[in-house]
Amino acid sequence: MATSTAQPQVITCKAAVAWRAGEAMVMEEVEVSPPQPMEIRIKVVATALCRSDFNAWLSQATPHLFPRIFGHEASGIVESVGEGVTEFKKGDHVLTLFTGECMSCKQCTSEKGNICQVLGLERKGVMHSDQKTRFSIKGKPVYHYCAVSSFSEYTVVHSGCAVKVDSKAPLEKICLLSCGVATGLGAAWKVADISKGSTVVIFGLGTLGLSVAQGAKIRGASRIVGVETNSEKSVKAKAFGVTDFINPNDYDEPIQQVVKRITDGGADYSFECVGETAVINTALQSCCDGWGLTVTLGVPKSNPEVKAHFSTFLSGKTLKGSMLGGWKPKSDIPSLIQMYLNQEIQVDEYISHNMPLEDINQAFDLMKEGGCLRCVIHMPE
Amino acid sequence: MATSTAQPQVITCKAAVAWRAGEAMVMEEVEVSPPQPMEIRIKVVATALCRSDFNAWLSQATPHLFPRIFGHEASGIVESVGEGVTEFKKGDHVLTLFTGECMSCKQCTSEKGNICQVLGLERKGVMHSDQKTRFSIKGKPVYHYCAVSSFSEYTVVHSGCAVKVDSKAPLEKICLLSCGVATGLGAAWKVADISKGSTVVIFGLGTLGLSVAQGAKIRGASRIVGVETNSEKSVKAKAFGVTDFINPNDYDEPIQQVVKRITDGGADYSFECVGETAVINTALQSCCDGWGLTVTLGVPKSNPEVKAHFSTFLSGKTLKGSMLGGWKPKSDIPSLIQMYLNQEIQVDEYISHNMPLEDINQAFDLMKEGGCLRCVIHMPE
Repeated sequence: MATSTAQPQVITCKAAVAWRAGEAMVMEEVEVSPPQPMEIRIKVVATALCRSDFNAWLSQATPHLFPRIFGHEASGIVESVGEGVTEFKKGDHVLTLFTGECMSCKQCTSEKGNICQVLGLERKGVMHSDQKTRFSIKGKPVYHYCAVSSFSEYTVVHSGCAVKVDSKAPLEKICLLSCGVATGLGAAWKVADISKGSTVVIFGLGTLGLSVAQGAKIRGASRIVGVETNSEKSVKAKAFGVTDFINPNDYDEPIQQVVKRITDGGADYSFECVGETAVINTALQSCCDGWGLTVTLGVPKSNPEVKAHFSTFLSGKTLKGSMLGGWKPKSDIPSLIQMYLNQEIQVDEYISHNMPLEDINQAFDLMKEGGCLRCVIHMPE
Repeated sequence: MATSTAQPQVITCKAAVAWRAGEAMVMEEVEVSPPQPMEIRIKVVATALCRSDFNAWLSQATPHLFPRIFGHEASGIVESVGEGVTEFKKGDHVLTLFTGECMSCKQCTSEKGNICQVLGLERKGVMHSDQKTRFSIKGKPVYHYCAVSSFSEYTVVHSGCAVKVDSKAPLEKICLLSCGVATGLGAAWKVADISKGSTVVIFGLGTLGLSVAQGAKIRGASRIVGVETNSEKSVKAKAFGVTDFINPNDYDEPIQQVVKRITDGGADYSFECVGETAVINTALQSCCDGWGLTVTLGVPKSNPEVKAHFSTFLSGKTLKGSMLGGWKPKSDIPSLIQMYLNQEIQVDEYISHNMPLEDINQAFDLMKEGGCLRCVIHMPE
């Protein structure tokens, strides 16, 4: 086991701390512990705001996890490594991974799974290894979010929750490939495996939905229907491949009927990217019988129960979910970055806003108003 | 268009007529019209009782469809054909198909679908072509069930709702391949596509569940867990391939925890064959993360709503349904019959009882008591 000679010390830095659910974050001086065994400490460079951050910040369900540092879609540079870490060294460019890959559990050793049994989605606000935090304010714990917590100048993550990336890739752009854009592309390619000439309907045209659209376009879908209540998104939607933009508010009839009319009885694939369980049912109804596949991507902020009439399934439909678009995070994300560097996929175009960490509450306001795609938060140099 | 020279006449014969939902059927003399264009009239030879017949008979939801003749899992011999029918001739051995295949709609012309848009599951108690019945008693209509109605000496079906079969195959056995056994095998082979060495859990070990077990065994599943509240079924279950028979009543903990323990964190595939939507959720919970696939086969008699927490899907699980195990009825069922004739699949072993049509209420009683697998009803010679 490799042991670093110069022991890392506690770093004190700026972080956006959420003291209570739904209340504006406060820029605080936080202490960031040295990385523990198999962990790395990262100097965050850029971190985008994802709706999951927003929903978790808003949720009243976990008051015991505050104060908390949100953020999970991030890039940065390794500042120091903990005992046993050989995969990373100081100076490496990395993306954080909100769901990790231990490389040795049943999921990680199977070709099919990506729900790591050791470093899977962390929900308790602590580190996987010792169930403790690496952040504190005057010695009192500040909780993590999804084992990443990137709304801080420095953060500590398990070495399985980061992936080394080509240093030629601009960190302030590719952070989007650590969650949103990767999830949408994976939903289209790995989960649905969209075939050429097929019909697709996407509910919700945020970054997730528009990434699905990009993925569908690259696969050669013949028709990509986008369903979105904000008509201002239609121009961007078409740029990402949406062929038919429909706003449910423009119709008196249920939107699944409109979709079925456009797609000759129902689309081959439908995607729920709104984050409302009720929309999953609408998406199922918008698919064709026999082979219609609905992929659910959105994480609902309320009503966690998915409901559908059994006859939906009796008629041959499938409902499929996934985490991170089915990608094995450490194994697969570098190839997406390579595609980005080869200009085979678009990423920059999802960035509607850039702002410094200290303006983070504005980013949350923008998301609340539906006025942004991805807002990238930049750390002080 | 071929026109028969001797016009078929009305046939008067015996049928088991259900006058009201849930009330004992009465043997009546019914009039069976000649087959209309593209229809055939069949002398039924054997018809098994399926739980769908039982549930529909019990249901108070459709009082306007009574009097009615149930039965949809049947074999017989063509007695006459309507105008335009060239596929069948008098004397052909056939299986009835409760969901038809028109050979020309979007579903029938696709390799993937089997939910015929023209001759799909008929729910209104009438014929597809003219929305009328072919049965009457003293001129008053008697409604059909699933466009088959085989609890009658003679019945009329659309020519797309029957398939010609090898006359070497015993009609009193292969009737099971027109629904139950075919559905279970198809769920295992076509819908789930069970792979060698995988783990399988089956909820409900009636004919459907035990056909899934047979399918899983033939595919080389390493472990086939059967969940069933009636422990008397364990011997038969093992004969069909179940390696672990578990009765939920023997455990204090939720059955999905037991299954997860046996299958190292969850089965690769789970099958709902009970016909209770609540069990679909249990089946989902019994699957592993990442690639766990739940196939729903049972048709619930109440509570038609499927409910599951969204996180079930976020962890990479899939819920898939199908009709008739995904088989294209007319195209695929003959190959199952060939497998039966080659002794590659078991069918006879699902028949627990045989009785004449006049004893049909006993068959319903047996199903109510859970005392049978398939009960085959034989018509008078």
